[in-house]
This record gives sequence, structure tokens and C-alpha cells, in this order.
Amino acid sequence: MKSKPLEFWFEFASTYSYLSIMRIEAVAEQAGVEVLYRPFLLGPIFQGQGWDTSPFNLYPAKGEYMWKDMARRSKAYGIPFHKPENFPVLSVYAARVALLGEDKNWCIPFIRAVFEAHFVDDQDISDPDILEALLVELGVDGASVLHSAGAGNVKQRLRARTEQAVELGIFGAPSFIVGRELFWGDDRLEDALAEAISTENLES
Amino acid sequence: MKSKPLEFWFEFASTYSYLSIMRIEAVAEQAGVEVLYRPFLLGPIFQGQGWDTSPFNLYPAKGEYMWKDMARRSKAYGIPFHKPENFPVLSVYAARVALLGEDKNWCIPFIRAVFEAHFVDDQDISDPDILEALLVELGVDGASVLHSAGAGNVKQRLRARTEQAVELGIFGAPSFIVGRELFWGDDRLEDALAEAISTENLES
Repeated sequence: MKSKPLEFWFEFASTYSYLSIMRIEAVAEQAGVEVLYRPFLLGPIFQGQGWDTSPFNLYPAKGEYMWKDMARRSKAYGIPFHKPENFPVLSVYAARVALLGEDKNWCIPFIRAVFEAHFVDDQDISDPDILEALLVELGVDGASVLHSAGAGNVKQRLRARTEQAVELGIFGAPSFIVGRELFWGDDRLEDALAEAISTENLES
Repeated sequence: MKSKPLEFWFEFASTYSYLSIMRIEAVAEQAGVEVLYRPFLLGPIFQGQGWDTSPFNLYPAKGEYMWKDMARRSKAYGIPFHKPENFPVLSVYAARVALLGEDKNWCIPFIRAVFEAHFVDDQDISDPDILEALLVELGVDGASVLHSAGAGNVKQRLRARTEQAVELGIFGAPSFIVGRELFWGDDRLEDALAEAISTENLES
């Protein structure tokens, strides 16, 4: 059976992106769907809407609910979760490394390691030294990768990636793109996978 | 088996409240859970957050996505849905009638009729004459009810209801309250029902 690939657009500071990163490998494999990882930054998108921080901080009732919902959902999924001290964390360095590593075999393990460092161990993933240590744990030359991730072309690619998100209609994270269809939120991961394997959408 | 009642807080202008109103009777009956209907107004809560209209209008990408998501979800649920011309519609008259009717046997059929008039037939439910006609169709003295719904004590009760929503931590609709637990969004209706029948939460 041929299925469409699923683009998984995520932001390292995003709580619901964490839920998806911890679930997506297993459910996508079960569905036989290829996942393309798309790190991007929500900050510039939020700024474009006049927000200088997460809406979960701007709107306290919504924020209080989100932390309760995260505790419930992670428990229901059997995923460890600890509310980080610093929210939303500065995610630009992690996003640059993930973007640089997109075609490397350490990329997905690195992405998972960063999310777990942030949302389980409450490490400061805004600190390049922490990112370097996570790479080293994966057997990667972290110092070299961090150096390359700071280059102008990587910064430019991340800016372009975030502009592409806006063009795709993305306004939050996680988002899933299948063909031309956008799905927003961890709650819609299963719907996005169903779209990817839907025979209605496949070329014969 | 004894279960906790589920308070269903809804706003007549809210798209996802419509999905829940069309689903809740069947799923709650199946779960053996009593539903208490709680009409309230989101407008004052949004105004308190500095919004003069729905966030789906303030943030166009989010709004565009919502209409697509509504089309998909209603199709998946087998619920008819038509995007109304006027969004968000002025819902204060409908909310006053629903509040006035809370202990009447016509209340739930009236609530459903208003939502269907708005989200299926695109009738102008901001017009008291339309509401009166919907009541008459249910065999109710619509003129008398509309007259009573305009009284000062009903207006005051609706204001108090919306203040109570804020105190409960409600920031959007639909919301479900079970005991002290808040669940937000049509996507969480099943979780709220699970909470209502959870033996962890019941007195022995």
C-alpha cells in the first residue's frame, strides 16, 4: 500500500509538540506512514499576531488549563512529563541544530533527546552547551555541529522554514501536513495519519 | 453504578459547542451520566482578554483552519453543518431564553433547535422573532417566554452565570465540569464522561 508522507511541524518549546514527538514514531510505523520532521519557530508567528510570549502565559486561565490537560494527557499516554521551570524556553539554538541535522541519522534521536531534556528533566535547552552534551551522548561531535548550526546559512534556512509555515497556514504547534491538508494539535495526529493512508487521496 | 453529573457549559455562537450539543445526549446516555446544561456568554470573557470578537476572526489563519476542521469533524460524526453567514452571532437573547427554561421540559429541545437553526439552516438566531418561532414549533408560548426572558432578573442571572464561568476557570466553549475538573473543547467530551464515571472519584 502506498501512503502519503506526513510532515510533522514542531516547536521545541511547545508542550503539545512534546506529546506528539513521544507518540509519532510508533503510531506512524503502525500506520505505515513516513514522517518528515519539520522544526520551526512559533515565536515569529506569535509576534506577527501581536503576542510577545506564549498565549498560555498571556491568558492565565488558558495556561492553567493547559498544564492540567498536559498532566492528564501524558498520564493517559503513559508518557513522563514535568512542567519546566522556564516556559516558553528559547528554542532557536535547538531548532538550528535540528534543521542542520535533517538528513543525518542522529536527527530524530536528537529531537527526542531535546524534548525529554526539557519536559522530563527540566534541563535548560536554551543553553548551547546542554545541546552539545546531548549530541555527544548520541556519539556525535557536538562542538562541531553547534559551530556549524551558528552559520548564517542555517539561520537563513530556519527563517525561511518559519516563513514557509506561515504560507502553509500554520499558526500553532504541533501541526501536521498531508498533501495540502493541515491538521493542528496533538489531538489530530490520528486524523492526519488517516488522511495519509486514505485511498481517496492516492494516485492509482 | 453512581456517576457524577457533568455540567455542559456552552455558548450558542460557538462552533465546537454545536458539535457537542449534537453528540452529548447520546454519549452521556450510553455512559449513564446526567448532563446539566449551562448556557453562558463568551463575549464578556473574550472582552476581559482584550478581544472584541472571536479569536477565529482576530487570527485569520486560526479561523480558516477552524472552518476546515469543523467541516471534517461534522462529516466524521455524521452531523450536518453549514458555515453561517454571521459569525460570531449575537447570542444573548438565545442564552436568556435557555437560562429561563433551565427547569422546563422544552429547554434541551430548544437549545438543540437554536444550534441547528444557526449551524444548519443559517437562520438569524440573534433575532428574538426567530427564537419565538422556534419555541412555538416546540408547542411553547413563545411570545410569553420571550417577554419573561427580557426581565431584569434573567439578565442578572445570565451575568452571574458568566461570572461563575470565570470563577470556574472557563475561558472557552464548550467546557465540561465534573466535580472540580474542567475539560475544554468538544475533543474532551469523552474524557469528561470518563471522569464522571471513574470509580476513583466516587464516594463508596
